[in-house]
Amino acid sequence: MKVIIMGCGRLGSRIATMLEQQGHAVTVVDITESAFRRLPESFGGKRVVGNGMDVATLERAGIRDADAFIAVTQGDNRNYFASQVAREVYGVRRVLCRVYDPVREGIFRELGLETFSPTSYGAQIMVDMLMNEPVRR
Amino acid sequence: MKVIIMGCGRLGSRIATMLEQQGHAVTVVDITESAFRRLPESFGGKRVVGNGMDVATLERAGIRDADAFIAVTQGDNRNYFASQVAREVYGVRRVLCRVYDPVREGIFRELGLETFSPTSYGAQIMVDMLMNEPVRR
Repeated sequence: MKVIIMGCGRLGSRIATMLEQQGHAVTVVDITESAFRRLPESFGGKRVVGNGMDVATLERAGIRDADAFIAVTQGDNRNYFASQVAREVYGVRRVLCRVYDPVREGIFRELGLETFSPTSYGAQIMVDMLMNEPVRR
Repeated sequence: MKVIIMGCGRLGSRIATMLEQQGHAVTVVDITESAFRRLPESFGGKRVVGNGMDVATLERAGIRDADAFIAVTQGDNRNYFASQVAREVYGVRRVLCRVYDPVREGIFRELGLETFSPTSYGAQIMVDMLMNEPVRR
């Protein structure tokens, strides 16, 4: 699968590494070149410096052939905007988008994006941890 | 269960709301009073303004009687420091700590804290989403 990941923060770099290890062709886009330091030295995917909200950057990243687009910058609106472009302009089949704000998450889903909210998941996981006995290591 | 939550950001406020709905006695501590706006109006728990790394604040929050302490500020080191105080000074039975940095997570676990890393979970969840067909809503 050809996957473009927008945002090379902790989450983006981790996803890029996991997908590449599974044999996918991964391109990571970040506005700041130094963000790529988070990728392991062994990372063999493509690194593109640029703004993922800009179509020229997306085309350099290979959006026309991409099977999936994953938007995981720190900004909900940036993720949403780029996701919509990937979907509506380029017809990318799978578009996943991180959304911090639970209210926005509902809106984005209604607009047809696949969303992931770290807040909703995180809260549920920590409450579940508390309700279960601790694992002693 | 008497639970103290340090940090009333998106995650802390969500956890506080969930635990209160389950009938637990919840106290939320934040350094900024305006952070409490994230709690629902119906929230009946205690709000304490202060620095959770400061023992006077922790005592005002009722740390001596707490069954659990959950550290979810934005800072890994702050979460770690307060968690250690809760555990070692006050003997709180359950201490849960959010850690962004995967390297630190391993260290904190070795020191006996129960940790939750949004990065590790989030990356796995997004990769799983991608590998499965999208849910059409």
